[in-house]
Amino acid sequence: MSEQQDTSKLWGGRFSEATDSFVQRFTASVNFDQRMAAEDIAGSLAHAEMLCKVGVLSAEELREIQDGLARVSQEIEDGSFQWSIELEDVHMNIEARLTELIGITGKKLHTGRSRNDQVATDIRLYLRRAIDLIGAELTRLQAGTIELAAANTDTIMPGFTHLQTAQPVTFGHHLLAWNEMLQRDYGRLMDCRARMNQSPLGAAALAGTTYPIDRAQTARALAFDKPTENSLDSVSDRDFAIEFCAFASLLMTHLSRMSEELVIWTSAQFNFIELPDRFCTGSSIMPQKKNPDVPELVRGKVGRVNGHLVSLLTLMKSQPLAYNKDNQEDKEPLFDTIDTVLDSLRAFADMVPAIRPRKEQMREAARSGFSTATDLADYLVGLGLPFRDAHEVVGKAVAHGVEHDLDLAEMSLDTLQGFCTDIGEDVFEVLTLEGSVSARDHLGGTAPAQVAAAAKRATALLAERH
Amino acid sequence: MSEQQDTSKLWGGRFSEATDSFVQRFTASVNFDQRMAAEDIAGSLAHAEMLCKVGVLSAEELREIQDGLARVSQEIEDGSFQWSIELEDVHMNIEARLTELIGITGKKLHTGRSRNDQVATDIRLYLRRAIDLIGAELTRLQAGTIELAAANTDTIMPGFTHLQTAQPVTFGHHLLAWNEMLQRDYGRLMDCRARMNQSPLGAAALAGTTYPIDRAQTARALAFDKPTENSLDSVSDRDFAIEFCAFASLLMTHLSRMSEELVIWTSAQFNFIELPDRFCTGSSIMPQKKNPDVPELVRGKVGRVNGHLVSLLTLMKSQPLAYNKDNQEDKEPLFDTIDTVLDSLRAFADMVPAIRPRKEQMREAARSGFSTATDLADYLVGLGLPFRDAHEVVGKAVAHGVEHDLDLAEMSLDTLQGFCTDIGEDVFEVLTLEGSVSARDHLGGTAPAQVAAAAKRATALLAERH
Amino acid sequence: MSEQQDTSKLWGGRFSEATDSFVQRFTASVNFDQRMAAEDIAGSLAHAEMLCKVGVLSAEELREIQDGLARVSQEIEDGSFQWSIELEDVHMNIEARLTELIGITGKKLHTGRSRNDQVATDIRLYLRRAIDLIGAELTRLQAGTIELAAANTDTIMPGFTHLQTAQPVTFGHHLLAWNEMLQRDYGRLMDCRARMNQSPLGAAALAGTTYPIDRAQTARALAFDKPTENSLDSVSDRDFAIEFCAFASLLMTHLSRMSEELVIWTSAQFNFIELPDRFCTGSSIMPQKKNPDVPELVRGKVGRVNGHLVSLLTLMKSQPLAYNKDNQEDKEPLFDTIDTVLDSLRAFADMVPAIRPRKEQMREAARSGFSTATDLADYLVGLGLPFRDAHEVVGKAVAHGVEHDLDLAEMSLDTLQGFCTDIGEDVFEVLTLEGSVSARDHLGGTAPAQVAAAAKRATALLAERH
Amino acid sequence: MSEQQDTSKLWGGRFSEATDSFVQRFTASVNFDQRMAAEDIAGSLAHAEMLCKVGVLSAEELREIQDGLARVSQEIEDGSFQWSIELEDVHMNIEARLTELIGITGKKLHTGRSRNDQVATDIRLYLRRAIDLIGAELTRLQAGTIELAAANTDTIMPGFTHLQTAQPVTFGHHLLAWNEMLQRDYGRLMDCRARMNQSPLGAAALAGTTYPIDRAQTARALAFDKPTENSLDSVSDRDFAIEFCAFASLLMTHLSRMSEELVIWTSAQFNFIELPDRFCTGSSIMPQKKNPDVPELVRGKVGRVNGHLVSLLTLMKSQPLAYNKDNQEDKEPLFDTIDTVLDSLRAFADMVPAIRPRKEQMREAARSGFSTATDLADYLVGLGLPFRDAHEVVGKAVAHGVEHDLDLAEMSLDTLQGFCTDIGEDVFEVLTLEGSVSARDHLGGTAPAQVAAAAKRATALLAERH
Repeated sequence: MSEQQDTSKLWGGRFSEATDSFVQRFTASVNFDQRMAAEDIAGSLAHAEMLCKVGVLSAEELREIQDGLARVSQEIEDGSFQWSIELEDVHMNIEARLTELIGITGKKLHTGRSRNDQVATDIRLYLRRAIDLIGAELTRLQAGTIELAAANTDTIMPGFTHLQTAQPVTFGHHLLAWNEMLQRDYGRLMDCRARMNQSPLGAAALAGTTYPIDRAQTARALAFDKPTENSLDSVSDRDFAIEFCAFASLLMTHLSRMSEELVIWTSAQFNFIELPDRFCTGSSIMPQKKNPDVPELVRGKVGRVNGHLVSLLTLMKSQPLAYNKDNQEDKEPLFDTIDTVLDSLRAFADMVPAIRPRKEQMREAARSGFSTATDLADYLVGLGLPFRDAHEVVGKAVAHGVEHDLDLAEMSLDTLQGFCTDIGEDVFEVLTLEGSVSARDHLGGTAPAQVAAAAKRATALLAERH
Repeated sequence: MSEQQDTSKLWGGRFSEATDSFVQRFTASVNFDQRMAAEDIAGSLAHAEMLCKVGVLSAEELREIQDGLARVSQEIEDGSFQWSIELEDVHMNIEARLTELIGITGKKLHTGRSRNDQVATDIRLYLRRAIDLIGAELTRLQAGTIELAAANTDTIMPGFTHLQTAQPVTFGHHLLAWNEMLQRDYGRLMDCRARMNQSPLGAAALAGTTYPIDRAQTARALAFDKPTENSLDSVSDRDFAIEFCAFASLLMTHLSRMSEELVIWTSAQFNFIELPDRFCTGSSIMPQKKNPDVPELVRGKVGRVNGHLVSLLTLMKSQPLAYNKDNQEDKEPLFDTIDTVLDSLRAFADMVPAIRPRKEQMREAARSGFSTATDLADYLVGLGLPFRDAHEVVGKAVAHGVEHDLDLAEMSLDTLQGFCTDIGEDVFEVLTLEGSVSARDHLGGTAPAQVAAAAKRATALLAERH
Repeated sequence: MSEQQDTSKLWGGRFSEATDSFVQRFTASVNFDQRMAAEDIAGSLAHAEMLCKVGVLSAEELREIQDGLARVSQEIEDGSFQWSIELEDVHMNIEARLTELIGITGKKLHTGRSRNDQVATDIRLYLRRAIDLIGAELTRLQAGTIELAAANTDTIMPGFTHLQTAQPVTFGHHLLAWNEMLQRDYGRLMDCRARMNQSPLGAAALAGTTYPIDRAQTARALAFDKPTENSLDSVSDRDFAIEFCAFASLLMTHLSRMSEELVIWTSAQFNFIELPDRFCTGSSIMPQKKNPDVPELVRGKVGRVNGHLVSLLTLMKSQPLAYNKDNQEDKEPLFDTIDTVLDSLRAFADMVPAIRPRKEQMREAARSGFSTATDLADYLVGLGLPFRDAHEVVGKAVAHGVEHDLDLAEMSLDTLQGFCTDIGEDVFEVLTLEGSVSARDHLGGTAPAQVAAAAKRATALLAERH
Repeated sequence: MSEQQDTSKLWGGRFSEATDSFVQRFTASVNFDQRMAAEDIAGSLAHAEMLCKVGVLSAEELREIQDGLARVSQEIEDGSFQWSIELEDVHMNIEARLTELIGITGKKLHTGRSRNDQVATDIRLYLRRAIDLIGAELTRLQAGTIELAAANTDTIMPGFTHLQTAQPVTFGHHLLAWNEMLQRDYGRLMDCRARMNQSPLGAAALAGTTYPIDRAQTARALAFDKPTENSLDSVSDRDFAIEFCAFASLLMTHLSRMSEELVIWTSAQFNFIELPDRFCTGSSIMPQKKNPDVPELVRGKVGRVNGHLVSLLTLMKSQPLAYNKDNQEDKEPLFDTIDTVLDSLRAFADMVPAIRPRKEQMREAARSGFSTATDLADYLVGLGLPFRDAHEVVGKAVAHGVEHDLDLAEMSLDTLQGFCTDIGEDVFEVLTLEGSVSARDHLGGTAPAQVAAAAKRATALLAERH
């Protein structure tokens, strides 16, 4: 890289001393912002076409720039591009190479823009592409979850509160609870996309430019919905990164909850499901181990994403307008969040459809944990007891069961009548697992018919996405 | 409060030992959840009406409940209601008092619901009301900001990047940058409202209920858009609280940025604005002080809101479904976030319209900081120099100015021509502040006409809210 | 409260407009800082005595102030003190009342100090007292944990990694792992105490005072180790609050890990322990439930403490020296962290000794999960196989066991020899649980003798505290 | 890399399906944990020597391992080592290569240890080395700060509270406030080092090992103070990483405060200092700019460090013992925190001594901001007025000064007597800047003699470090 292209030369007129080489490395961003190279070139092309249309560049100059950028793009793709720390960032690296290739016209490309609006444009383009990929993986995970749910609308398992057996539910119902979380995540992702899809290009350093630019044209060319409204805001705004990370924190929180359940369910004590070997690893020392590595790792990764959200919020706290160098710190947290979310979704979208429920163990756990106690209480209410009194009766029956290791359905009618003389033979219908789940037969309830209908509605919602 | 209503009695059938009194206090929520009393009663009324319609309660029982709840409501309002730690939470306190007032029918109110769906309903109703209040204050702040901007479309001040004078902008333009941030905040608030406005009532403990409830009716009665889709999700979901806090963190981040600017601008060294005395305080020891307390305090309050966001994310991390006691910890961070946001917005909505710009100081600061250097560079480009060469020329002129304490507009034509012989007399037009701002005449630029048009558009957007 | 004592009057000479009443409430701190009243009075007494000794106050004036403050103290204790929002904070409230009681001498108390060093002193005194209480509760929890461990040095349970059965350990060994976490917490707490126990009194507003104060005397009188070194730092430093909250976050993280284990262990599927009823609650709808509320709630409370840490870090980020109004936001997070830590420790210190291990279930779980597979591998290494090959052999044996539902100790010698012909009859000793744990007989290992010795050492460490 | 060394083969006996290649990449850590290669080899050497001493390895085997590891070490250093994702992590990569080089003896190295204690050992060794480097840079920064302070004990500048001129201080005094923050940071760093410097080696997977290991020997060999106390805790503990990150967050918070001041002081409006060009950058579009990039960037970097702290706290929240795969997520935040802290300290240690105060501007700012108003009040108290009344008088004088643009020292005696007739000619001594700072002559005060003495004490403290 020739000395002449060193950025410290670019403002050399004003400065009397060269940049310290450690400082150069410390303040450079090219190591991480080079991943926006494709977006940087796309933005430059749109800008150049507009400059030509408004008469700042000639058609010939435009063609030179287009050809030069095509060559730069090719060099980056095939790995022959020489990235240079001295040139600070992706923008200067590409511009310097362009100028090397096509001469003085390369320098004209920067007319009417600044690195401040350029980086704001690049990062929005990059994030928008990431959002679309994430949306697709999220949809794939939801589809797999709903399908597994649809196949298990009547697979009975204990529903837990406080990790204590509460009431029987179906496995399909539980999986659709997962889907609801993901459905909200998708909504947040799309809201974020809609809000950020505006073009900051043309804001220049902070105040706009004196050239007769056409911001609507560049916005259109880059598939933005419209140009941003205010130049100062355009170069200082990082809301989109924070809003995206807030989406990601919630999504990862949801995946951590599913992960926790998968880890618990694969323990020897629960043994509710089997995960295919390829999502697990063994131990270098304990030959019997089959560890649910993928859900554990995803559970851990919520930490890094929450951390990145905090990073960005801390970063922006009490920054005066417009652009400050601090803002360079927005990229690494954002990029790592994107990578983490994409990888975690991919792992889950592959894994969830491969979960094999151990139906017998699930059923047995539901059977033995007094899970139909509420049903007995409801039965007693049906006989005319106030709910609070019915609750008391059932509590005593449960205490008896704990002492004698008997579930409610295993007690004799005599025993049950010992707690309330009005109980009849029909009580045993109520105490079956099937009776219990089927009785919760309303929108959102765990009755198999409701679960099947809910799975259908959920599938229909996915189909509306494009 | 009679022993009989103590909740430890409510599950007494199962338990052999009374709750430790410290544990009782430690696990009780009534000290903070009593602020949802109005919502709890509204939810109970909707539930009772529905139970009557589907035949679980008689018309007479409904009337008793309605009368009883009206009386409870009155007692709470006039401060005569006796809150009890023994009764744990707002729900049991109200139900116990209702039963005291109307007898056994009070106990029937709990038919077909659980505290799990009850608290989920209450908190959504509470948050929805808070959102509406916050939306109104945010609108008021935006209106005041836009109005001040409209009055200052041509008040020139230095635009800063890196807190160094960059290019002249108008104060109105700067204020509209603030408005853009707030406009996005409003969008996020409304998205949050739309997503959370669904009724969890009827999810019962986690699986739905065996009673023939009509969830659509209770949803309608409580002005929810519709019932939630899945009972397990309904009682375990706290997304709405997190999404709201993420909105709040961004909003407070924006207010912290405005605050930072206000603090800097009121310093003796900047002296750009005057804040009315009523938003400032003095010192008990230094008689000359006039401290910008309100912006400082708001700047500090971003800390507590970011903290609450982290609280809630940490809280939900890796929680298995459905309800866990941990979730009780959702309320205090949410409530304090609501209070902080409302107070901070109110303070700003009162204060911003009262800001008095010191136009002379602003102008002088813009004049003396080489703020039109970019304009000179653009002028040179107009003469045919490549931008990077023009940049070099201006750099040298600025270095000269720094050395001799002269702004560009103060240099003689001779001096300027010493840097580039092509410079003509017309350069001085370009170097005026008015010339500089007026030249940035495109959508989003700082030209007074653009700022005036932007203020008009911003006002029109506010008018669309209802 | 007389008009004359309103703080807005205190700087009235400088101001032309009264403080807005909402702003007054918004900026006042008395609602939360009044809990430092005792510390404020202690600080004032020390200050007054010093002022008398250096000749600024007469002996008579000192006596008046002492008497006056004694009366104020009494009024606060018996609840008759009238707190006033108009007087902003605890300092002005007390000073105003003092002046009301003793006249003009009350005003002299403020000589040579400022609210900036006064609040810094109060909060350190308050925190120091809290640290001592927390240290005592932490010691109590550790003592209870070690005692339970000492009673269970040979109670065998499965040791888990990845929540999969790994190797047998003893329950006592597991409990001592908890103790190690708490031991580190205690160390951090004491380090925090040592670092913060310095007196900022005398820093005045920010630069020191022109009065001939004796900072060493006030430091001694308030049991500080010494005065702080720099007045600017003294009024702007909030490190102590952040360091304390970092301690608290780690402590709560540890309690959350213990809580998670308690919740899992009390599940029907694990059933490893029983928690006394008084640390649990039941369900208003499900009569069979016994929910581990206390550990769940403590697990949730790590969220609020992490949140407070983030609050304080965000608060202090990029604050210029010296005091800024933002700093007022330090108190609520700190106070709530203190309360949360104290309550959580108290709950755990009460609960842990009351944990009843279900030894049979623990043992059965250890027996059935191939937990001695590593021992078999070590046995094979003893026969001369390389470890990695032994690992392979055992892996196959385990796969056989999974398929035929047999633990290693349940296989016949023939079967075992099918995987490696060198295996002899003595293998079954190795495969027993007792053999397995006893063989890990080195410092830190799970052998009962080692666990007993470790418990003894841990107890000795506690005894060194005072 | 041969198939045979693929880790999925290592537990192949148990598994029926190969690891998915995406899953392999997703769960592998070698990309980031390879930076602990030197520590991994050091730990292996210590382990091997101990195994030899206790008779598990022969002297010949030890020699082979030592030679092999030396060769691996060389290969890593010269870049010829082939890192493989299939081998998951740094440990397996090195062991596999060792076995390739020396055959079956390489496999024996793993006897009596597990990757769980191996990684715990590596990361502590790595962090300990980082702590020592950080300690050295911190000391260098403190030395530079103190030296600059010592050269400016009587350079007068305005002391600020609320960014409003409060009282005159000296620049040296202000710099020593910075040093106090850093001094506490150093203390926390050393406390962290002392607490974490224990050897987890020998904890094996979680329960210790059946081999007759000597943990005290390996601890000594690796310069740990002693072995850890409990094997379960040893493999699950990540306190050291969190405590280090808490130290780092506070340090970066301090650097962010200094940065904020540097940014404000280099603004055209303050103009208090000059930063050498090499710590600044210019603008690609605005030729006059000299941006304080280094302090801005450091200010921004507090965000990423706070984020990493939150990451780790979130990661460990509610993890059951002992090791879980989640823990793999501890490394990247820790490593990035180390890098960030080291770079930021280096940048500051280079930059601070090069700060050039603009003494005239500082003095002028102190002179013109009524900074001696407190001194006038103290003067009036000396005349016998109660402090609160003196405060009122001075407030009126300041209001007069604001109106007529006169500082107190610029008013005539007549004017001053208009506010209080007792004022005499001697008042003007009190109103000088030198008189004001010199009068604050006590430990911690801003009097030049005190500042000089404080600088001497601070230097002496640095000298005690080794």
